[in-house]
Amino acid sequence: MALTDAQLQELAEAKAVRSETRRPTVPALEAMLFEPLPVLDHGFIRVVDYMGDDNAVVQAARVSYGRGTRAANEDRGLIRYLMRHRHSTPFEMCEIKYHVKLPIFVARQWIRHRTANVNEYSARYSIMDREFYLPAPEQLAAQSSDNRQGRGAVLQGEEAARVLSLLRQDAMTNYDHYQEMLNADEAGNILDPSRQGLARELARMNLTLNAYTQWYWKTDLNNLLHFLSLRADSHAQYEIRVYAEAMLRSLEAWVPLVAEAFRDYRLGAVTLSAQMMDVLRRMLAGEAVAQEGSGLSKREWRELMAQLGRDA
Amino acid sequence: MALTDAQLQELAEAKAVRSETRRPTVPALEAMLFEPLPVLDHGFIRVVDYMGDDNAVVQAARVSYGRGTRAANEDRGLIRYLMRHRHSTPFEMCEIKYHVKLPIFVARQWIRHRTANVNEYSARYSIMDREFYLPAPEQLAAQSSDNRQGRGAVLQGEEAARVLSLLRQDAMTNYDHYQEMLNADEAGNILDPSRQGLARELARMNLTLNAYTQWYWKTDLNNLLHFLSLRADSHAQYEIRVYAEAMLRSLEAWVPLVAEAFRDYRLGAVTLSAQMMDVLRRMLAGEAVAQEGSGLSKREWRELMAQLGRDA
Amino acid sequence: MALTDAQLQELAEAKAVRSETRRPTVPALEAMLFEPLPVLDHGFIRVVDYMGDDNAVVQAARVSYGRGTRAANEDRGLIRYLMRHRHSTPFEMCEIKYHVKLPIFVARQWIRHRTANVNEYSARYSIMDREFYLPAPEQLAAQSSDNRQGRGAVLQGEEAARVLSLLRQDAMTNYDHYQEMLNADEAGNILDPSRQGLARELARMNLTLNAYTQWYWKTDLNNLLHFLSLRADSHAQYEIRVYAEAMLRSLEAWVPLVAEAFRDYRLGAVTLSAQMMDVLRRMLAGEAVAQEGSGLSKREWRELMAQLGRDA
Amino acid sequence: MALTDAQLQELAEAKAVRSETRRPTVPALEAMLFEPLPVLDHGFIRVVDYMGDDNAVVQAARVSYGRGTRAANEDRGLIRYLMRHRHSTPFEMCEIKYHVKLPIFVARQWIRHRTANVNEYSARYSIMDREFYLPAPEQLAAQSSDNRQGRGAVLQGEEAARVLSLLRQDAMTNYDHYQEMLNADEAGNILDPSRQGLARELARMNLTLNAYTQWYWKTDLNNLLHFLSLRADSHAQYEIRVYAEAMLRSLEAWVPLVAEAFRDYRLGAVTLSAQMMDVLRRMLAGEAVAQEGSGLSKREWRELMAQLGRDA
Repeated sequence: MALTDAQLQELAEAKAVRSETRRPTVPALEAMLFEPLPVLDHGFIRVVDYMGDDNAVVQAARVSYGRGTRAANEDRGLIRYLMRHRHSTPFEMCEIKYHVKLPIFVARQWIRHRTANVNEYSARYSIMDREFYLPAPEQLAAQSSDNRQGRGAVLQGEEAARVLSLLRQDAMTNYDHYQEMLNADEAGNILDPSRQGLARELARMNLTLNAYTQWYWKTDLNNLLHFLSLRADSHAQYEIRVYAEAMLRSLEAWVPLVAEAFRDYRLGAVTLSAQMMDVLRRMLAGEAVAQEGSGLSKREWRELMAQLGRDA
Repeated sequence: MALTDAQLQELAEAKAVRSETRRPTVPALEAMLFEPLPVLDHGFIRVVDYMGDDNAVVQAARVSYGRGTRAANEDRGLIRYLMRHRHSTPFEMCEIKYHVKLPIFVARQWIRHRTANVNEYSARYSIMDREFYLPAPEQLAAQSSDNRQGRGAVLQGEEAARVLSLLRQDAMTNYDHYQEMLNADEAGNILDPSRQGLARELARMNLTLNAYTQWYWKTDLNNLLHFLSLRADSHAQYEIRVYAEAMLRSLEAWVPLVAEAFRDYRLGAVTLSAQMMDVLRRMLAGEAVAQEGSGLSKREWRELMAQLGRDA
Repeated sequence: MALTDAQLQELAEAKAVRSETRRPTVPALEAMLFEPLPVLDHGFIRVVDYMGDDNAVVQAARVSYGRGTRAANEDRGLIRYLMRHRHSTPFEMCEIKYHVKLPIFVARQWIRHRTANVNEYSARYSIMDREFYLPAPEQLAAQSSDNRQGRGAVLQGEEAARVLSLLRQDAMTNYDHYQEMLNADEAGNILDPSRQGLARELARMNLTLNAYTQWYWKTDLNNLLHFLSLRADSHAQYEIRVYAEAMLRSLEAWVPLVAEAFRDYRLGAVTLSAQMMDVLRRMLAGEAVAQEGSGLSKREWRELMAQLGRDA
Repeated sequence: MALTDAQLQELAEAKAVRSETRRPTVPALEAMLFEPLPVLDHGFIRVVDYMGDDNAVVQAARVSYGRGTRAANEDRGLIRYLMRHRHSTPFEMCEIKYHVKLPIFVARQWIRHRTANVNEYSARYSIMDREFYLPAPEQLAAQSSDNRQGRGAVLQGEEAARVLSLLRQDAMTNYDHYQEMLNADEAGNILDPSRQGLARELARMNLTLNAYTQWYWKTDLNNLLHFLSLRADSHAQYEIRVYAEAMLRSLEAWVPLVAEAFRDYRLGAVTLSAQMMDVLRRMLAGEAVAQEGSGLSKREWRELMAQLGRDA
């Protein structure tokens, strides 16, 4: 992972500092602060700060005055009720801030979630690191033949080797030329005093989309759940899904009751159309329903049968 | 202030709880947690939770890894630079959550700030308290004669007494009828077992706009500053300005360097149009500029002269 | 409905003006422009302007260059696919602007939808009309006994008459006193030259929450659908649901394919939790599942059985 | 510009279609619909649709009912008043939609403006075009020596030639390898039937940041002005500034009164801090103020003197 010794030292020192607070505090998440969770070959997520806990959701729902006196059992029920009925505003009362290192093409997907605060490392201002993502062999997948947005079988043998070699070689060459154009090395030292060096804001355009960038990303719990429901999903591209999965682990440490309700009512939930519900009712009444008379398209029929664990 | 003994007891107990944290902590703001600041006759603001400090702004601006090692002096310079040049994203990295009790007509202005998270006490679900705002005598102002949105001289004598009496009497009568329609008292006890009682979501419509409501309101520091720049301004209605002023005090406890820069570059700053700048340059060159040849309308001329402390 | 003769005249004139445009145009919606749809006793919605049509959604999904050449049939399939799989960004490419007249307590619910643009009639600046909402007799419902947020049976006889009389009388009295405090009538004429009149921004606090206000409200199609899914729902309060239902009619005129997909996949759809799907699979396999062994709470079990049209 | 003959043909046909509408229509902007404005070497902006005009801003400010009857002169005054005093909500009542073709590194800056709707061409789904940005010789600037975010003198001779050659060669090579990995040409034809081809969502990571992408981008007028105030500014990177300048031309065609007020009160305006205003007042009173006694830092003093057209 791309942290220098100086940075690791700084994190270790920061981690050792303890303060006293009257704010809600979650020991399981405190343990993760200053601890980067590795993702992909050079990336990570790291929880930088947080506000609130399971109880803050409950408290907002009750607009009560203190930390509440109800039994823990009732809190769980209330959180599950809120999640099931999509009462989203109490979940907005918790906030979390991450430091993330990620490939630029992943950052481009991620940034489409607009309801978050972002501070990204600036390649106008600073020199980018020599780091880029190369897929592990088992991730070098062919284009899916039946899904224009998906992956098929893993590439093998010579084709796999060629792909990996092209990705590595092009990223390296482009980075070498990036430095040559800048007339500077990673630390900013001038390479050739007889040259001026291209402006950083221009030289960066030669980098490839698998170059790593990093940012601070801060969001409320409700938007985090929305992000995770889309990006921890099996339809999400693998390279962003692994970030979402690492964030799910921080979610479980932070707000265990919310995380449990989220798994039951969102991640594992299925939305069925009016017509699908009608088919279901007929099936439960003992009718043998076929696609033709179902009111569903072939595609929807397949989707429904898959959800019900039946052959289409 | 409208906190029951039970609530004050609960706050006192919550206040006594201390935890250990690795998060950035601000002792001056910790001291304000669980302490409602009174506003108007029955309202308050209370800081419930916060994330980040002055240093978190600096850290985001640098996308650095730990708590930073630069001199405090450089941090102040960087914060002032960011504020002066409207680099707003680093300020989004801090978050604060308030509990606010406020009259409904103030809540209606406040909610127009959309980039915040809100959980309001629900009058569909619960019975409202018998509390409403009555202006102090020195706030009973006449309509301004030269500003359709402002206040003029304070009402005196009989007219003032009559206004105050009407406001009090109507609020009381409407609240009495609210309870009668609900067929319930504030605690929810049924008044007359022979009646059904109107649904809460309907009965509430009889309340007046000076009835108090309350909410949790959470926002990031950048949006808080935007809110304060509009609502702590002299053009804001007095009844919302006093809330903004109480929040300014929490801002100073929380992020003193940001608060200082905010006062210098935002609250006390003046924006001058291209034409106004041209007038200024001519005046500084010794020219005697008059409104006629200034390129400014009479209204703009008056505004500029007022800013320069000169007679129009 | 609260439009003066002068306003109706102005609308009639505006309606007669036709221009030529190269923009996508929807004749069925054009016919609704400048035509207020009545809602409640004095309210209305009126479509002021719109951008885009069904085809604009398709075009955005394809990021194509013109009006597209695919068969209409394929467009319908694509829109249904986008709706089913919650691909929301293409729906953001259409925009609609309404003029709405509505009671203040409804406006307070409505404004919680933050992703819209709003310009509301200002009671700081102008004098409010003498108009307030009084429920029709069949809407004078008692508090629900099993749902803290809902309505029960309709009030009858003396209780109903008393409620209606209180609502009417209090609204009238408060409005009379509003004018007295302002020292002005609805048209702004001074009532008593010997008095100053209270500032409008203060006098308004005496109005009741059933007073009518009005605003321009503009949103994109995706957010409109989200608003409608919550507010055209049977759990929404009647007084906002009737607005949503009127807007649904404008939706059908505007984007009929989107409206159809919305009814099938959103309004009529049901989201089932992981545990509920498991119960379903067991039932379809012929197992007699009871609440006890279902993994569902009693409440969830009742909800599921209701969805399946079965006795709990 | 990268429009195929088929696309140009489609645009020409679409452009020929006229409809009748009752909506506000702006002939000068209608003339620009379906007409891409070229930007950089292969990019463009094209207005796809719009809602509202100067009058719609006025109408929202008055929450009036029709197209208004005031003199045009009063409308201009009102728009200038709203702009000067940052009353932003009436400007939110107009909306515009662009189709933009732009280099990815520009898209990454642009997307940071979150309050807009975006549909981008998907490289997960489709194959990217062989097009990338190469700066014109006069834009090949060196890194600024006094501004870490800016450009200095233009590179000359051998260094310029070398930079241009590297940029071209790397972009070409990477694109060639992109196709080789995909095992497909731009039209999607398979190159070598014995290979599978890497998934599109993976192959794209080999592209350089100067590759062109395209999107539909839709925003309200208030946010457009905010975007333009930042991106048409001299501190913005040249490659995004030229897009903002092309959009300024569409702004002037669309809402000429708003555009005029925007130039006077925003683009050409200067914000002076409390301390700067104090210095000004002293200078106007005839005092010879120097940096030392001014209360300003050296940097601020230089900024102020530059604004006043004086030597620091």
